[in-house]
Amino acid sequence: MFFASDNAGPVHPQVMDRLNNANDGYAMPYGADPIMDEVREAIRNLFEAPEAAVYLVATGTAANSLALACYAPAYSTVFCTQVAHIHEDECNAPEFYSAGAKLTLVPGTDKMTPEALRKTIEGEEVRGVHGPQRGPVSITQVTERGSVYTLDELSALTAVAKDYKLPVHLDGARFANAMMALGCTPAEMTWKAGVDVVSFGGTKNGCMGVEAVVLFDPKKAWEFELRRKRGAHLFSKHRYLSAQMAGYLADDLWMKTAAMANRNCARLAEGLQAKGASFLHQPQANMIFATLPRSAHRRLHDAGATNYIWEGSLEGDDPDEHLAMRLVCDWSITPDDIDTFVSHI
Amino acid sequence: MFFASDNAGPVHPQVMDRLNNANDGYAMPYGADPIMDEVREAIRNLFEAPEAAVYLVATGTAANSLALACYAPAYSTVFCTQVAHIHEDECNAPEFYSAGAKLTLVPGTDKMTPEALRKTIEGEEVRGVHGPQRGPVSITQVTERGSVYTLDELSALTAVAKDYKLPVHLDGARFANAMMALGCTPAEMTWKAGVDVVSFGGTKNGCMGVEAVVLFDPKKAWEFELRRKRGAHLFSKHRYLSAQMAGYLADDLWMKTAAMANRNCARLAEGLQAKGASFLHQPQANMIFATLPRSAHRRLHDAGATNYIWEGSLEGDDPDEHLAMRLVCDWSITPDDIDTFVSHI
Amino acid sequence: MFFASDNAGPVHPQVMDRLNNANDGYAMPYGADPIMDEVREAIRNLFEAPEAAVYLVATGTAANSLALACYAPAYSTVFCTQVAHIHEDECNAPEFYSAGAKLTLVPGTDKMTPEALRKTIEGEEVRGVHGPQRGPVSITQVTERGSVYTLDELSALTAVAKDYKLPVHLDGARFANAMMALGCTPAEMTWKAGVDVVSFGGTKNGCMGVEAVVLFDPKKAWEFELRRKRGAHLFSKHRYLSAQMAGYLADDLWMKTAAMANRNCARLAEGLQAKGASFLHQPQANMIFATLPRSAHRRLHDAGATNYIWEGSLEGDDPDEHLAMRLVCDWSITPDDIDTFVSHI
Amino acid sequence: MFFASDNAGPVHPQVMDRLNNANDGYAMPYGADPIMDEVREAIRNLFEAPEAAVYLVATGTAANSLALACYAPAYSTVFCTQVAHIHEDECNAPEFYSAGAKLTLVPGTDKMTPEALRKTIEGEEVRGVHGPQRGPVSITQVTERGSVYTLDELSALTAVAKDYKLPVHLDGARFANAMMALGCTPAEMTWKAGVDVVSFGGTKNGCMGVEAVVLFDPKKAWEFELRRKRGAHLFSKHRYLSAQMAGYLADDLWMKTAAMANRNCARLAEGLQAKGASFLHQPQANMIFATLPRSAHRRLHDAGATNYIWEGSLEGDDPDEHLAMRLVCDWSITPDDIDTFVSHI
Repeated sequence: MFFASDNAGPVHPQVMDRLNNANDGYAMPYGADPIMDEVREAIRNLFEAPEAAVYLVATGTAANSLALACYAPAYSTVFCTQVAHIHEDECNAPEFYSAGAKLTLVPGTDKMTPEALRKTIEGEEVRGVHGPQRGPVSITQVTERGSVYTLDELSALTAVAKDYKLPVHLDGARFANAMMALGCTPAEMTWKAGVDVVSFGGTKNGCMGVEAVVLFDPKKAWEFELRRKRGAHLFSKHRYLSAQMAGYLADDLWMKTAAMANRNCARLAEGLQAKGASFLHQPQANMIFATLPRSAHRRLHDAGATNYIWEGSLEGDDPDEHLAMRLVCDWSITPDDIDTFVSHI
Repeated sequence: MFFASDNAGPVHPQVMDRLNNANDGYAMPYGADPIMDEVREAIRNLFEAPEAAVYLVATGTAANSLALACYAPAYSTVFCTQVAHIHEDECNAPEFYSAGAKLTLVPGTDKMTPEALRKTIEGEEVRGVHGPQRGPVSITQVTERGSVYTLDELSALTAVAKDYKLPVHLDGARFANAMMALGCTPAEMTWKAGVDVVSFGGTKNGCMGVEAVVLFDPKKAWEFELRRKRGAHLFSKHRYLSAQMAGYLADDLWMKTAAMANRNCARLAEGLQAKGASFLHQPQANMIFATLPRSAHRRLHDAGATNYIWEGSLEGDDPDEHLAMRLVCDWSITPDDIDTFVSHI
Repeated sequence: MFFASDNAGPVHPQVMDRLNNANDGYAMPYGADPIMDEVREAIRNLFEAPEAAVYLVATGTAANSLALACYAPAYSTVFCTQVAHIHEDECNAPEFYSAGAKLTLVPGTDKMTPEALRKTIEGEEVRGVHGPQRGPVSITQVTERGSVYTLDELSALTAVAKDYKLPVHLDGARFANAMMALGCTPAEMTWKAGVDVVSFGGTKNGCMGVEAVVLFDPKKAWEFELRRKRGAHLFSKHRYLSAQMAGYLADDLWMKTAAMANRNCARLAEGLQAKGASFLHQPQANMIFATLPRSAHRRLHDAGATNYIWEGSLEGDDPDEHLAMRLVCDWSITPDDIDTFVSHI
Repeated sequence: MFFASDNAGPVHPQVMDRLNNANDGYAMPYGADPIMDEVREAIRNLFEAPEAAVYLVATGTAANSLALACYAPAYSTVFCTQVAHIHEDECNAPEFYSAGAKLTLVPGTDKMTPEALRKTIEGEEVRGVHGPQRGPVSITQVTERGSVYTLDELSALTAVAKDYKLPVHLDGARFANAMMALGCTPAEMTWKAGVDVVSFGGTKNGCMGVEAVVLFDPKKAWEFELRRKRGAHLFSKHRYLSAQMAGYLADDLWMKTAAMANRNCARLAEGLQAKGASFLHQPQANMIFATLPRSAHRRLHDAGATNYIWEGSLEGDDPDEHLAMRLVCDWSITPDDIDTFVSHI
């Protein structure tokens, strides 16, 4: 009953197989392996972007920070939400990789709205050389609170960015989960919606540790390569990143695992609802933010469930007080796990 | 009728004299000039801090950024208000000098409150290595909106910082104005109130371009020196920084010019009040935020007054609409200027 | 016949098995996996350093840069050879991670000598605040040209460093190859010889992508953790780094693969010598720098051998001109490969 | 008898006068003062570069570091000599401002030769993404050892840079001294000779603390402005930088003071030669590197002369041992000083 995160589950067997199969003989290092050629081609096809620059790194923070650094000069500021992973969970990596750019927080509790974004952008750089310059807008899809922007919502945000000629980064650590929730194509959720660069996540959705960065403007390619190397994120035995991604893409595995994760989440949400849980908002992808009474939390805890108490504490006198929890499902969660979990509430 | 800022007036004659007097013969460069020995001694005496490390730089941004960099590791965050100069007006200099530390904004419109500070600190670093570590608290005295923290207010803020073992930086670009408003000593407004490092401003109060950084912990001295040199802020002909500061300190000139600026401001506030202006808050030092009808603004503008319209625009149909303005007085403003200004309202 | 590098061969089956075995169920992320506990313990035991801080990263450049950053302030300079990997092959990563420290090159062609090191250190920082401050000494073992420092040579270098109170970093990308060449213990080649922090390589010696950083001073632990996270080198699914290292350490595999690589190299050197090749110096570990006539290079190339021509070019009129080559063996090279290679000369 | 440096003498009265005259009324801050308009125009005229971007900063290190940062990406390397000020005397400021670029040292003892430059450039970046990319070439004129490149020598160096499409920076801390030695125009010594950006020194030649940065490509202007502000080098009371430069340029003062300094140096060299001193090379501008017996050094020291012993020490048994000294003259040195100095040898 592991619902703490989607970064703790096993690698999908198909990815593991591909890794094992790749482990034969010699392959040119540093991205010159033939599997990477295959991966690059596959991702360009997927995104209907034959010119896109495609690179692999091993962590989501590297994907985000390197992508942003190509678009955020040191004297600029990145626009993101108050709960963005790049703001809260990367220990200043975006600031590090951009040599000291700022992050300007767009008010709001989860999804960024075009109005809030516009107002925030307007609030910056009205002072010439004195304040930071307006830099990229970074959007997270699936959001950190489990919401999914519709294509229209995405386009509305990028339209604001374009009004100010600002580039747009999409943190797609859970790209596949969002796409399956929307039922759209990768192109529709990225460049067709105005996105310039996307972190296309693999780790949370069945891989071991691999994320693709897709830059739709190939003129950024060489800068990205240099930044990746300088950041110590270029793997010598790169074929093992390539192989993960190749296994992940083959036979649409990435869509299948995302669909599984989303289905798991829906089943869990249904069970929670039946037990009277209340939701921060209706779960759309593979994350749930819901509240349960402390007594229910305690039963779950005692039964061995692993998940984060988001607000409040198991310690406390009142058994009826509602505590918020975050529940995340990856592809590997079984219906049995879910049903057992629900049964303990 | 120049009320746009206190960074545009002339150098006080006494400072200029000292500069001219210093311009004789040869002096060892890079801070080894004898006038610097005199200045160091004078500042240590003023602050009742015989061990303090004292350094001069030429800009307030350099003073703030270098001071903060000694206390804010790259993986930390600095706590300041939303309108702090270090946040809004230094083009990411604090981020640059700290190699990418973050600035966490304490909500509020001007003065920081202990409650807001505590809540903001509590909100950071509850995620171990994932979020930035809590770093220094930076307080501006006089604030960017012209308020002056009382000694009790300062101590209440530093007490919160100390609860979390966080160092405290005081941005004292208008240190003297605040001190004269409070009627206290330099020591009372700094280390006795829990401040670890202060930017002691000279430029806005009668100098040409000089700020002292006073580090009450002398163990930081060598690091500061190296950071200053590496930041290209160590002057070869340093005696001309020393001479400014020496002239500024002699015969308590710095207190006199601050008192003059504050008196000018009070006279101006009185005049404005008589004319029906409304104030953001009661002016305490040398800055006023007040509103006047557009028609009055236009008359002032036509009469050649120089000041910032803070909110709104001279252009506009309604002559009665109130527009906010910022008015700053330095020591050099004359009663005549003020009275003429008021007469145009 | 792949002799281009030891970064292009397969992962050893025992490491792969451990990876596959680790791929079961859920494991706490970000280094909190139980396999990491096992690895930490094993490395502390190996190094006879029960207090050492032990961390895993995925690339050698990350290991070096993060380790150095903990010891090299931005206003300091790192001492290394002209051919050090940190200087030539990391695209300014050490400069990046240290926020702009310099690398001062100790003259010489391969091994650093105590005399050259001392002279170079003496040449730096005789100018107070003006030049960079003396920072860590970084030694590569096995060197970039395939030499192995004896324990006495290592101690002589670290003694010079200690004379100036400078910390010592050991780039051990080929740590195991050196150790097997010397027949010593990990402790003897590190802290007993005066090393403060070591990059303990796995990738080139049978792993997929994992390096341990061992800091013998545990007071540096938390700083390292923060730098690793900020550098985007903390893996969420960390167990797969742990599992690689666990498989690598089990049953002394790491020593066995290194011994295999060294034996392969010795066999190759013998074959080359019999064919009249001349050596830059006598191969000691798993790298050979040797010269052959252009005609021999061409035959090898036509036969499908993969290796670097170090100086000169296959193109050229004179078939007898000698061209330098670099040959590297990892554990996976077979005697047959070697003999075939030699037969083509 | 002050010959230690040209950074310790007084400000020329004409510059001081202009400073005093500028000290009247109010002037728009941050470079918007009318004197700056005058200075910009004057420098563009001087350099026959009507489009050039012209900015003022207060230190030579700021001028060099900011100029280089506009041309040296973080993943590049700057080519300079082993004794370049940017390498030896700026405490890693160029590395800081460029976010970690490297400095690659062109071998040689003083002047850079085209052959050495070409060979050094060739030695860098033959490894794609692994090594740093080739960045700007930085040339110092007058060199750190007092030599002056002829126009042909300059052009030969920049021609090498252009062969590799590398930009060229000229560190002109002693620009005027070189120009007077050559008898050429500012344009001839800069853009006509292939220079892209120049640090045009004022401090060492009669100013208090001001250097102009002239970027011949105006497309770099805004980036420079942002970098200057972010580096805390934009002065609020900017008119006092402008006034220094205006006073310095008026009536060709800058050429006169340089000519005076050079003449002083020639007189000193003549005197030294008559006393049997031997020279590192024939003095051309305002610096002398010469050797004298220890006994002569002692006599000078006892007579109160201030200068650097470059190699060796006053302490020592042998009165006849020759010690190298550096002697620098600024405009303010008097013939009497020089003659007295020589008389003590």
